[in-house]
This record gives sequence, C-alpha cells and structure tokens, in this order.
Amino acid sequence: MQLLKERIRKDGIVKAGNVLKVDSFLNHQMDIELFNEIGREFKRRFEGKNITKILTIEASGIGIACVVAQYFHVPVVFAKKAQSINIDGEVYSSKIESFTHKRVYDVIVSKRFLSPEDHVLIIDDFLANGCALMGLLEILESAGAKTEGIGIVIEKGFQDGGEKIRKMGIALESLAIVDAMDAETGTVKFRDE
Amino acid sequence: MQLLKERIRKDGIVKAGNVLKVDSFLNHQMDIELFNEIGREFKRRFEGKNITKILTIEASGIGIACVVAQYFHVPVVFAKKAQSINIDGEVYSSKIESFTHKRVYDVIVSKRFLSPEDHVLIIDDFLANGCALMGLLEILESAGAKTEGIGIVIEKGFQDGGEKIRKMGIALESLAIVDAMDAETGTVKFRDE
Repeated sequence: MQLLKERIRKDGIVKAGNVLKVDSFLNHQMDIELFNEIGREFKRRFEGKNITKILTIEASGIGIACVVAQYFHVPVVFAKKAQSINIDGEVYSSKIESFTHKRVYDVIVSKRFLSPEDHVLIIDDFLANGCALMGLLEILESAGAKTEGIGIVIEKGFQDGGEKIRKMGIALESLAIVDAMDAETGTVKFRDE
Repeated sequence: MQLLKERIRKDGIVKAGNVLKVDSFLNHQMDIELFNEIGREFKRRFEGKNITKILTIEASGIGIACVVAQYFHVPVVFAKKAQSINIDGEVYSSKIESFTHKRVYDVIVSKRFLSPEDHVLIIDDFLANGCALMGLLEILESAGAKTEGIGIVIEKGFQDGGEKIRKMGIALESLAIVDAMDAETGTVKFRDE
C-alpha cells in the first residue's frame, strides 16, 4: 500500500534494536483518515470472503479494527490482556509473550462473542514474531470459529512471524512489509521495492 | 440518546455492586454502527466548538474515539496505561485509580502529541467516580491544551464524577445517564425519564 509506505518513510522513526516508531500516526496518535484508507485496502484484499466478525487485541489494534470494520459491516471483538472483574462467565484464553513489554500475559475473549458460526478476520497493527497472532488463532480454534484471514498494517519481514503464518496456509495480508531498517541512516527497506 | 438507552435496556446486564455490563456492544464486542450513531450525536452536541484533537484512554475508549473522530476530522490520541519501552522522550503523566481493576496506575501521553495549540475533546465509554477523566484533565493542563469538552457514552449518575466535572465548568455531555440500577429485577433508571 503505497500511501502507507510513504507515510512510514515520512513520519516513521527507526531506532536501534529494530524498533520502528510509528506512534505519530498509527499507535499512540492515530490518523483516522489513514485508517479509512487502510479499511478500503483490506476490504479490497479480502473481497469475496464471508466475514462475520473482526477480532483484534488491545490496545493499539482496536482503533484500526473499528475503522476497518465499517467496510465489512461487522462487529469488532477485542481480546483483553489479563483478567478483569468485569468479564464474567467463561472465557477463551491464551498466553502470549510481548516483545514490546518483555513479559508474558494472558489474553481472553468472552465465550459469548465467538462461536463456530463466526467467520473471523483478525486485524492488528504490527506483526513481528507472531506471538500475539498465535494467541488469537488459538482462541479462534478453541471457539471453533473459522479464520478467514489476517490483516496487518506493518509486518517486520525480517522476523519469522509472517513466514510461520503463511506456512499454516492462512491468508495473511500485510500492507507494508519492512525487510530491513537502518537506525544510523534512518532508512527503511520495504519488500518488493 | 434514545437509541443508546434502548440498547442498554435490551442488551445491558445489571449485576450486583452497581455493575452495568455492556460488553456485548460497547466495550468488548463493539457495534460499529452504534458507534457511528454515537459519533453523529457527539458532533451535534459539540457543534460550533473548535476541536483539533480527540483524547481518550486505553483500552475501551479507543474504538469509540476513532469512530467519533470521523465526524470531527481530527486525529485521536490515547493515553497509555503504564510505561512502554516504545514511548521515548518526555511524556505527560498522571496517576489514576481504577474502580474496575482495583489498582492505581500511571497514564502517559507523549509530549509530542499535545500542545498549547490543541483544542481537545475527551471521549470515553464510562464515567463513574471520574478518576480517569481527572487524570486526562491533569495531562491536558500540563500540556497547556484547551479542554473543549468531554463526551461520555454512559454516565453512572449515582456516582459523583459527573457532578465534580460539571462544577468545574467543563462542557460534559453524557449520552445516557443511569441514575439507578436494580440487579434483582435487571432494570435501569435513566435521568430525565
């Protein structure tokens, strides 16, 4: 997605340790006009799929998922990190390891919101080692729901999450795949360029 | 907002301890069509205000804020709970106490995303004792930004947050104010009915 790649080049900041900061438009301050373009692009890429629900994970996936959902006319469910007293009854759960926060946490989804009738599109902002996605896929499998695809805004192509997921035969669409970053020059190399 | 009140009556679940569960449409599974109606209503209520940014707090405020922002054509910034290694540089911070999670945490916003030029509308799903809002107001004051108003989806009118904020002279608009709940009968009494 050309518009997104240009935005990453313009406003993304490359930091040491393969960190790509896009917090001025994607995951702290959020450019809603860009999110709408992202929604249109996911709709195009998953055209013809029978999608009944979008699943994402808190926190930074939620805004993107909600804007994207407008193009599919379906509700969004977000997986919650850690137990809340406001979630009652039974939940589907999975453990995931966060690269960003360097810890393991539980993610949960109420059993009331996922069922074998659901055809689910997973939406998230980043894909790196794929731990968060594996957790969401485990939750969908527990629910007996069908995974119709995964839509990612930025994939770190030099980490193995994307390869793992594609090998599983899941339709994974990443709008920008970063194959290399250089913190010294501040440059980003995208796949297929 | 009549549509919202009807939805709360239909799908909200009243539990002991003054808990109103609206997780089937507002803060776990999210009805994006309803969020659009909420966006239209906030636009109507804050018509004429010069708003340059929407501020919310993770996690459940984010989806609503992003859909609402489409009616104001402004970016959304969400306050993050606890420190992340991906936030660098200086941040505005405030401590808030969570009724839901029964603990105190820090909320932070990068200084790059709030400035004295900003005219801010705060959006959140719930208002009860007002602790989260007080934290956001403190952050806006630190930034020198102007608070143009606060838009809340559901206010618990029997807790004192709403009264405190209105006494401060801030334009607070709550789309549904619950004045009483009865867990035994499962009923909700709204203000002005």
